[in-house]
Amino acid sequence: MTMPAEVRVIPLAGLPELEEGDDLAALLAEACGRAGGLEEGDIVVVAQKAVSKVEGRIVRLADIEPSARAIELAGDEGDPRQLEVILRETVEVVRSRPPLVISETSHGFVCASAGVDASNAKGDGTVILLPVDPDASAAGLRERLSELTGIAPGLIVSDSFGRAWRQGTTDVALGVAGIVALRDLRGTIDSRGYELRSTMIAVADEIAGAAELVMGKANGVPAAIVRGVDARGEGRATDIVMPRERDLFR
Amino acid sequence: MTMPAEVRVIPLAGLPELEEGDDLAALLAEACGRAGGLEEGDIVVVAQKAVSKVEGRIVRLADIEPSARAIELAGDEGDPRQLEVILRETVEVVRSRPPLVISETSHGFVCASAGVDASNAKGDGTVILLPVDPDASAAGLRERLSELTGIAPGLIVSDSFGRAWRQGTTDVALGVAGIVALRDLRGTIDSRGYELRSTMIAVADEIAGAAELVMGKANGVPAAIVRGVDARGEGRATDIVMPRERDLFR
Repeated sequence: MTMPAEVRVIPLAGLPELEEGDDLAALLAEACGRAGGLEEGDIVVVAQKAVSKVEGRIVRLADIEPSARAIELAGDEGDPRQLEVILRETVEVVRSRPPLVISETSHGFVCASAGVDASNAKGDGTVILLPVDPDASAAGLRERLSELTGIAPGLIVSDSFGRAWRQGTTDVALGVAGIVALRDLRGTIDSRGYELRSTMIAVADEIAGAAELVMGKANGVPAAIVRGVDARGEGRATDIVMPRERDLFR
Repeated sequence: MTMPAEVRVIPLAGLPELEEGDDLAALLAEACGRAGGLEEGDIVVVAQKAVSKVEGRIVRLADIEPSARAIELAGDEGDPRQLEVILRETVEVVRSRPPLVISETSHGFVCASAGVDASNAKGDGTVILLPVDPDASAAGLRERLSELTGIAPGLIVSDSFGRAWRQGTTDVALGVAGIVALRDLRGTIDSRGYELRSTMIAVADEIAGAAELVMGKANGVPAAIVRGVDARGEGRATDIVMPRERDLFR
């Protein structure tokens, strides 16, 4: 009997506080070295906040003049300046219950606060935005890691998203490079001879979630290696975005 | 520097085709033995279909008389008898676009087809239902594994659910025992000294998704051990169900 391979999720610790312009790939390459080095087929998962910081996607709330709509959406509990930043990152507000906003971002992601987050930002009064193009961020990190280490790993930029109908967040893929985002098993015959039906697996999201198990939010571990998942391919995280014409929940 | 521990996801292969009444825990214990044995703190993830089969949650469509509503929801492409089974498992239809139905099950889960699935069922013309009480199924498997192996692992009964706004399924926890379902970090101070805000993590769902990476749908691997995640506690998968009063998407 051939045993399927096991999967390992290896934390990448010891990265410093990140600043705009830092060479994140070089810091990741060093962390990979401390963890024993990259291997062919490895997938490196990096928290969106680490990527956004080095890309300078930070806004000072003191510089923001809230609109009437932002003041309305903030309600009594929210910061109208933060809601204004959220609206600027928003293509369409999907639901709101002040100060909570679920919206579609320019990337097509539907998520809380258009991905704008205040926690763990440098200093007070700043918020972090999603990268402008997380798939491009992933591709850039992959290319530079390849130059530095001789291995071109799969690359996922991850973030914590809430879900409809289920409490709690799970980490999902905002950007990918060098791997498929969706594994399409339609038409595959299963182990008992039946054709699979419900068979698009969001493998990049599952890998991002697995990485979260070692990254945590409070641990100062902004990245991980996932080893043993063969997902090599040319996907984009935007492949996972539900096309509007098939979307039953907007 | 203390390196956080790595996580391992170990496939449990070699289980036979399952029948109603089979001692699934004994088969899992044998598979764990072949994989080197259980360790304290391990979490065993088992596919819902394996659990449903041994619990006899299989319905022959030939025995089903479809109602007018089932015929309507089936449209031109669906099997009205299967829609009838789905309606019997449904508390509320949340969305429908024949033959697709998203509904709330008796457990409170919102999912496609009320969790009723035809693929990989034994023989033709049968469908598999979710366990009546997946948390109880998980607790039962955990107790029996503890008797057989001397180790009481965390236990997750998993299934593949679609998501609003994102394509593809990810595996989530339908039943848990011996672990928390949600990790509540509210009020925790992060590595930079900031208090975390968005901080309920659906850790059981992330563990279920990690296990899917080795289980696959077509591999005949219905279970996995996840090692290195300390999630011990007394949760229930129904903890993850969004309370109706906070649900923005029904």
